[in-house]
Amino acid sequence: MKKEIIIYTISDSLGGTSRKLLAAVTAQYPDLIFDNRHRFPFVTKKEELLEILQDALKDNAVVITTLVDDGLARLAREFSQANGLAYLDLLHPFFEIIEQKTGERPIEVPGVIHRLDTEYFNKISAIEFAVKYDDGKNPQGFLDSDIVLLGVSRTSKTPLSIYLANKGYKVSNLPLIPEIPLPQILDKVDRKRLIGLICEPDKLAKVRNNRLDSLGLSHSSSYTDVNKIYEEIEYSEAVFKKYQAHVINMTDKSIEETAYLIEEHLKGLN
Amino acid sequence: MKKEIIIYTISDSLGGTSRKLLAAVTAQYPDLIFDNRHRFPFVTKKEELLEILQDALKDNAVVITTLVDDGLARLAREFSQANGLAYLDLLHPFFEIIEQKTGERPIEVPGVIHRLDTEYFNKISAIEFAVKYDDGKNPQGFLDSDIVLLGVSRTSKTPLSIYLANKGYKVSNLPLIPEIPLPQILDKVDRKRLIGLICEPDKLAKVRNNRLDSLGLSHSSSYTDVNKIYEEIEYSEAVFKKYQAHVINMTDKSIEETAYLIEEHLKGLN
Repeated sequence: MKKEIIIYTISDSLGGTSRKLLAAVTAQYPDLIFDNRHRFPFVTKKEELLEILQDALKDNAVVITTLVDDGLARLAREFSQANGLAYLDLLHPFFEIIEQKTGERPIEVPGVIHRLDTEYFNKISAIEFAVKYDDGKNPQGFLDSDIVLLGVSRTSKTPLSIYLANKGYKVSNLPLIPEIPLPQILDKVDRKRLIGLICEPDKLAKVRNNRLDSLGLSHSSSYTDVNKIYEEIEYSEAVFKKYQAHVINMTDKSIEETAYLIEEHLKGLN
Repeated sequence: MKKEIIIYTISDSLGGTSRKLLAAVTAQYPDLIFDNRHRFPFVTKKEELLEILQDALKDNAVVITTLVDDGLARLAREFSQANGLAYLDLLHPFFEIIEQKTGERPIEVPGVIHRLDTEYFNKISAIEFAVKYDDGKNPQGFLDSDIVLLGVSRTSKTPLSIYLANKGYKVSNLPLIPEIPLPQILDKVDRKRLIGLICEPDKLAKVRNNRLDSLGLSHSSSYTDVNKIYEEIEYSEAVFKKYQAHVINMTDKSIEETAYLIEEHLKGLN
């Protein structure tokens, strides 16, 4: 039977930082079960914090905190030390380093990470842009895009567009279908912004089969025929060559990894 | 003049955890400039790591590492201690707590957080779902949705749909426009899944004005007329009442905060 470990995450904001770290850490323990349902966002009162810490102690849990308030963080630290509670403060070790370096102290305002500032609104409008110009819906948008993704069906164009939009890029994408002529406006797009996505045909056939399964459709179509897919990929490679698109092979890569390669390509151009 | 602090992030994977923490920390220091352009993902060799650490020392930087490999992490720690380099290891304090609790050691495989597993593919298909059923494009999708967002123009329906899709929910949304009849299928949607978004009219007028600016359009339209917006909001509130939608006021809330309230509402129903 797998061992279980209970995690309490406590934050005076939403607690997103703890969850991100937790995802990275738990991935390193395939043989352990992490029970991370004990999430306490928006904790701002000492009494409330103390109650949660007492419950954590009863549960023999590991406590992770992202509390910007120094008083709350100190309470959690002292309680944990006094009671032998396993405890990790993600923020204050960093705050201490910054104080040593610069003499500056944190403003201790929870949740400012989600400030509704210009950067935030740019991100929102980049996401709206990606949704609007997904799937070649309005090729006019190619001219305003930072990145135009090209690829045959199931090469992750949509999730990749959204992921890059989350990083603030204006992204559009165009599915390449041999039977459908390319929009003329593609001639006018800055070649440096064109990214061609390819995938190994066998892998693509598998992904497409899964796709049909999830839609409840049968498999006997050219959509999943490996020979047909070879033709499609060849066609797409010819398009990439013609338009001098930067080609990325996304087989077995996560969206995050493919996005990283695209960002590196763009940086290399500056 | 603002003080500057140089941050080096070193990871044997993409380094997303460091960046998330860094965003939370830097938000606490509005008077400091953080130079976080020094990002070193996919570092897996000791020589490479040592070079980066030496550069960090020259730059008087703060080093943040997410290195799952114990040998690399130890090298970074020992180098930093020996040379007085400010250094923060995000993973190993957590690894140590887990070892104390369970005796288990991490598998030390970089990047497993981006495993292409079922959860990952569910997330991808939720994002595709949200893009497909954005803006009431295909109301048939309402029946398959975990969440259907309703609201007048500029109540953050699209970015909210995408954010919730990132958490694995299947989300569709419908813009409410007094002049356009509601799709009949709305009658068949489980009321518990309906979320109505409202916003203070003055705030909405401001957001819409910004929207027109960004599109390069003039402002003399009913779209930004506060009286007209009052009518729209009233209409939307009547719709929410009729369909018993759960109403959330998103004025001055970030997407993350609004999404949190929606998730809490859904949890409360289980």
